[in-house]
Amino acid sequence: MTSSSTFAQRVLIIGTGLIGTSIAMSLQAQGRTVFLADSNEEALATAIAKSGAHTFSPDQHVDLVIVATPPSTVAQVLRQAAKDHPDAVLTDVASVKSSILAALADEPSTVFSRIVGGHPMAGREVSGAQSAQSNLFVDRPWVLTRNEHTSEQAFAVVRQLAVDLGAVPFERTAAEHDQAVALISHTPQLLASILASRLVDAPQSHVDLAGQGIRDTVRLASSDATLWADILASNADEVADQLAGISRRIDEVVQALTAGDDAAVSTVLGLGNAGVQKLPGKHGTGSRQDALVVVRLEDKPGELARLLAATANANVNIEDVRIDHSLGRMTGLVELTVGRDAQQSLTETLGEHGFIVIA
Amino acid sequence: MTSSSTFAQRVLIIGTGLIGTSIAMSLQAQGRTVFLADSNEEALATAIAKSGAHTFSPDQHVDLVIVATPPSTVAQVLRQAAKDHPDAVLTDVASVKSSILAALADEPSTVFSRIVGGHPMAGREVSGAQSAQSNLFVDRPWVLTRNEHTSEQAFAVVRQLAVDLGAVPFERTAAEHDQAVALISHTPQLLASILASRLVDAPQSHVDLAGQGIRDTVRLASSDATLWADILASNADEVADQLAGISRRIDEVVQALTAGDDAAVSTVLGLGNAGVQKLPGKHGTGSRQDALVVVRLEDKPGELARLLAATANANVNIEDVRIDHSLGRMTGLVELTVGRDAQQSLTETLGEHGFIVIA
Repeated sequence: MTSSSTFAQRVLIIGTGLIGTSIAMSLQAQGRTVFLADSNEEALATAIAKSGAHTFSPDQHVDLVIVATPPSTVAQVLRQAAKDHPDAVLTDVASVKSSILAALADEPSTVFSRIVGGHPMAGREVSGAQSAQSNLFVDRPWVLTRNEHTSEQAFAVVRQLAVDLGAVPFERTAAEHDQAVALISHTPQLLASILASRLVDAPQSHVDLAGQGIRDTVRLASSDATLWADILASNADEVADQLAGISRRIDEVVQALTAGDDAAVSTVLGLGNAGVQKLPGKHGTGSRQDALVVVRLEDKPGELARLLAATANANVNIEDVRIDHSLGRMTGLVELTVGRDAQQSLTETLGEHGFIVIA
Repeated sequence: MTSSSTFAQRVLIIGTGLIGTSIAMSLQAQGRTVFLADSNEEALATAIAKSGAHTFSPDQHVDLVIVATPPSTVAQVLRQAAKDHPDAVLTDVASVKSSILAALADEPSTVFSRIVGGHPMAGREVSGAQSAQSNLFVDRPWVLTRNEHTSEQAFAVVRQLAVDLGAVPFERTAAEHDQAVALISHTPQLLASILASRLVDAPQSHVDLAGQGIRDTVRLASSDATLWADILASNADEVADQLAGISRRIDEVVQALTAGDDAAVSTVLGLGNAGVQKLPGKHGTGSRQDALVVVRLEDKPGELARLLAATANANVNIEDVRIDHSLGRMTGLVELTVGRDAQQSLTETLGEHGFIVIA
């Protein structure tokens, strides 16, 4: 590539899982020349079939190498890529950043200058090349990290890559990134898994009473165990720190419960209220102006579609839709969030369409 | 009431919060004679206005007394109600059961024979008479508990009440109930609150990267802190037990992370996978036959309604709808879950309607 360009025309992607293959599909559709490599021949064949990209051969020159292998292998793959592609910009998509830099510490600054850390936060409860989609990254955060030697030009190339894939770039230091994902991603994953793990030995008669609350709380526990063990191992210190903080607070609550100290329990619950308020909100509004319309769906095919159509016809602005799967029954409760001023008219309209509006 | 009847025509509800008022609205609409009492005159007035029920006066005879006050006051209110209404069936709606029976231990068996514990599991992130709805209980579990003296007739009256309110009765012992809700409701509540509380002191630049994963995990943390402190205090032993188990498992994971024992971490994640599978499933099916269609909505009023209409017109069976509020931006990602065989046709239909289907 020319030294001033921020556009990488010839791109090598190493690792053809969900992320690597999705990048390949998007870049290929943009008219770039994309090469793929993977030690797993079946995944590689799937990725090539889905994306139309080319199998990489060593005689090919590339401007940009994207390492999309599991976190524990990224440093080693980057090291080799730096040798094989001495003038290419190098990036990765791992969900941890500091441990990769640490593992490369003996590389010269000329290598580090070409390295930009990246983390597209587009994870899903699916994985593999077969689940890849060219627009996986649209509107998702893509965290970019510099090391102390990263060149402006290399950074600009990777930033442009993220933008061209539709993502929203956020710049963080590697340490900031790792602390942030420990808090907002890795610790929630483990707490969900640990809570769900408690269901295994519980009597089914207890679990049968489960409603939407625990279902939401444990949703992440469905994630791929092997992939997540690798991610967590690569950010072990930060995650252990967060978990230790959680564990201390749990012990405080246990003590307060045992001592009958309701005020201390209430304080923790109040901090939880405050914490939720800090999350980036949709449309920047609080929930006070919103109202719920809850509909009971009968067990007939197409009832949800019919409800959606009736809702659309009501001409009110729907803020949110949730389906409550409690009871494991063939019926479902659907919660529609609307502005308070639209609650009554939607309730009436749905009633006219024969729906049972229960709240 | 006649001794063989399971139908209570004249009902007194003590406590006019969300649950008490919702029961009043439904029973009043069924043509029963409903009396209300509450020490909070404003709540009582709201409840009477919403339900059309009557203010209770001591000269009224009732067949059934429903105690719907906060858990910590239920035993005392039941004790008084037993004196005031010597032939009425007595029940409550508290989310804990054993502590109430324990607090009444000195009552004679003739009182216990009239007592049936109840717990309608229809909690919401809203509270108060003003949020009440007559059909709040439709399709929700309603746990019923007997004590060793509960008469068949009293049990039948309260069971019929639950059925007439549209709920699904589940019989459990008080101990079973309290263990179950500690696991599936109280512990998730506290873990959500504790995790959310960790956001309070975190830099906003970390929290800004939060996606749907943590948002689901902490959703319960929005609940009313005072009400929940009361609930948790009334089931303190069971909740403390559950939390201690969680805390031990967290400590094991911290140790495994620190020691680099990926296999141990993976084992916990695998147990989490297994735990989620135990939850009562919608339609009794696994998720393997389902596929996601993810749509990026533009920031225009009515786009969600337009999407719902287009989805309805696609004539495919929608299993689930989720809206991803990550990034706190004015755009939103909507995930539609459909059968694998409908994924392509829905994707095409939505594309024809001008929607950006991104996965």
